[in-house]
Amino acid sequence: MPRSSPTLVRAIENPCAIIRSLGVLTDTWTFLLVREALLGTQTFAQFRDSLGIASDVLTARLASLVEHGVMERTPYQEPGQRTRDAYHLTPAGEDLKTVLVAMQQWGHAHVPQDPELRVVPLTVEGHRRVRAELVDPAGRVVAPEAVRFMRTAPRPAPMEA
Amino acid sequence: MPRSSPTLVRAIENPCAIIRSLGVLTDTWTFLLVREALLGTQTFAQFRDSLGIASDVLTARLASLVEHGVMERTPYQEPGQRTRDAYHLTPAGEDLKTVLVAMQQWGHAHVPQDPELRVVPLTVEGHRRVRAELVDPAGRVVAPEAVRFMRTAPRPAPMEA
Repeated sequence: MPRSSPTLVRAIENPCAIIRSLGVLTDTWTFLLVREALLGTQTFAQFRDSLGIASDVLTARLASLVEHGVMERTPYQEPGQRTRDAYHLTPAGEDLKTVLVAMQQWGHAHVPQDPELRVVPLTVEGHRRVRAELVDPAGRVVAPEAVRFMRTAPRPAPMEA
Repeated sequence: MPRSSPTLVRAIENPCAIIRSLGVLTDTWTFLLVREALLGTQTFAQFRDSLGIASDVLTARLASLVEHGVMERTPYQEPGQRTRDAYHLTPAGEDLKTVLVAMQQWGHAHVPQDPELRVVPLTVEGHRRVRAELVDPAGRVVAPEAVRFMRTAPRPAPMEA
């Protein structure tokens, strides 16, 4: 993403929280790695084989996710093998579920392709399907058309977006 | 994003709905253009001046958003001026609010910077602050740790992600 945004301040320091998220979720691979981790993928070999991602790209993306606190690396060892690293989502990484569900929902609704999702978000207990929704302070779901964005502070300089 | 994902099938045709969303929301500018549109920005000059985006990039991004059904272009004319285009979010574009609120929330919580958001999502009536949440079929908010992703179909070939 940074390629086309040369005038933006460093994404993870940007005053806009949306851009800061994009400074961590930098490309399609990053989203896919989080998706795979949410499905239970843990090791370098598992990520590589399930996504067909080049090893050098995978190494860089995992390091970046660890650096930004989305994943943590823990050593593990199988009998007779050398010590390897396993990757787990941190609580911040788990918290990306809402982002991923919202994006999945939007893509499913507005860029239609397969009629059925192949990965679905379910409650752990009861396996009830969940959706990402806008919710007011009383816990009521609010339709998108009943919500608007409002500025609370003056528009920043363009360089800060 | 495509630069680092050479083996993926064309994003907007990908079986993964998350990738299809990323095939439309291709870079930081795209997210920012949607954010600006949600704040009421409508004309080419307004988008350019508020974001400090280069005209050729802006032209390309607006055309892409129109092509993908996120924005629609309508001609308008001010007295004594030539006809120009105004850009409005379609219902599909409005539906991106959930994605943007989820990303803003995550960046605000996990990549902290300013203590206060400068753009907040509020209900049109009553100006109540909304959050993006995972919600079960009964309309109850479910914590992210109580949700997991499950595959409903066999893992696709790596080329399809």
